[in-house]
Amino acid sequence: MALVLLTNDDGIFAPGINALRARMEKIPGLQVWAVAPDRERSASGHAITMYRPLFPVRVDIPGAVAPCISVTGTPADSAKLAIEAILPRRPDLVISGINRGANLGTDIFYSGTVAAALEGPILGVPAIAVSLDSLTSQDYSVAADFTAELALKVLQEGLPEGTLLNVNVPALPRSEIKGVRVTKVGRRVYRDQWVRRVHPRGQEYYWLAGELAEITNDRQSDVAAVEEGYISVTPVHLDLTRYDQIERLRGWELSL
Amino acid sequence: MALVLLTNDDGIFAPGINALRARMEKIPGLQVWAVAPDRERSASGHAITMYRPLFPVRVDIPGAVAPCISVTGTPADSAKLAIEAILPRRPDLVISGINRGANLGTDIFYSGTVAAALEGPILGVPAIAVSLDSLTSQDYSVAADFTAELALKVLQEGLPEGTLLNVNVPALPRSEIKGVRVTKVGRRVYRDQWVRRVHPRGQEYYWLAGELAEITNDRQSDVAAVEEGYISVTPVHLDLTRYDQIERLRGWELSL
Repeated sequence: MALVLLTNDDGIFAPGINALRARMEKIPGLQVWAVAPDRERSASGHAITMYRPLFPVRVDIPGAVAPCISVTGTPADSAKLAIEAILPRRPDLVISGINRGANLGTDIFYSGTVAAALEGPILGVPAIAVSLDSLTSQDYSVAADFTAELALKVLQEGLPEGTLLNVNVPALPRSEIKGVRVTKVGRRVYRDQWVRRVHPRGQEYYWLAGELAEITNDRQSDVAAVEEGYISVTPVHLDLTRYDQIERLRGWELSL
Repeated sequence: MALVLLTNDDGIFAPGINALRARMEKIPGLQVWAVAPDRERSASGHAITMYRPLFPVRVDIPGAVAPCISVTGTPADSAKLAIEAILPRRPDLVISGINRGANLGTDIFYSGTVAAALEGPILGVPAIAVSLDSLTSQDYSVAADFTAELALKVLQEGLPEGTLLNVNVPALPRSEIKGVRVTKVGRRVYRDQWVRRVHPRGQEYYWLAGELAEITNDRQSDVAAVEEGYISVTPVHLDLTRYDQIERLRGWELSL
């Protein structure tokens, strides 16, 4: 029986992970566990906790069949601990999400959702990260159905070592979704990112704010796909090497 | 006059950033600023702070010519805020380090040092991340000298958009360093990662522990270069797309 770990960065009680859990529990022959942070931990990036203890606690989610466990740490902590210490064995698939809000372009570096999923390939397990492109929608049904289908495909076909699929779903009614597009990572640029204020005692401080700048993205990018109403599926890997620069740098003849 | 931002994840008072600052201040025609977290923030990954204010505070570092500023946030916060709001203009180069401890292989996903450097290319500025392969050495002079040379080369030659150089320096006397090798990102695997304990009140908890497993790494990898006594320089980029899987995934004919 295939074993699937669900995790996220919005916390174990978030509607996204619970919609996905309920959908995955309906698939015959799947054993599902949910292990996630005890509270919202968005924009955690790939932070891990070394000098505070991680307490896993069984939590009661109404209607849940799967064991549901909260962890006092980051998304990456939760996934790593689940894979290596909590689950009865190494899972066959890790799914992180369904995140409240898209994870597109270079924003995936900041994403706790993607970081938790990356613990899959880091530890040799295929993974899917899935996000809904809305901060307000409570309807995760389209994203859950598509993820269930994709999960079965990944369990059947496998993914190459060191790879995950980053999925973003437009917040549209099912009938308005135009289809599925396999994409590359696009670009997101923000403008006016910092708001400066002054504390009542005189010190200046800053809030990270800003809004998306309108830039043209390649039609084959994740950003463009979601804008155009397609579900975006991007293969992402662990190898950050920029191979095309190795020869050029060797030409610099660096020495001490 | 070229403007260079120094940042790190060990905090503004760490010896590594101050050795680098002192070395960079000696280069004629460079204007240097140091902006870094107010305390150690290792293993922060690319976390950013959205719902706590960031206070930048001018700090007094004995002997420093460069303005030195602490920030109440993560390494990525510090670099992003410095580039966009604190420095007199967008810098020409970001250097993150010198980190206490190597940042090699897939560990770079967890690295606050590399995350801070990545804010450079995310915001259109070339960057260098530099780490010394020792948790105890206080001698940052070899790493500082090499970084100064590399910085001048990058300022002169440029880097392609979206690229940084990840540098790791063996903790060896200068005469024992074998040279410089341009490398790819290697693999690091840990074993026995989790230590389970029981709290006096009965709850179980875990510490992230573990040690490096001995695995064979490609001779062209960053891991092998440092092991063999070479300074490793790895070109790293922002594009996480696994291009060779796009056609295969299109063959899955995914639909909703």
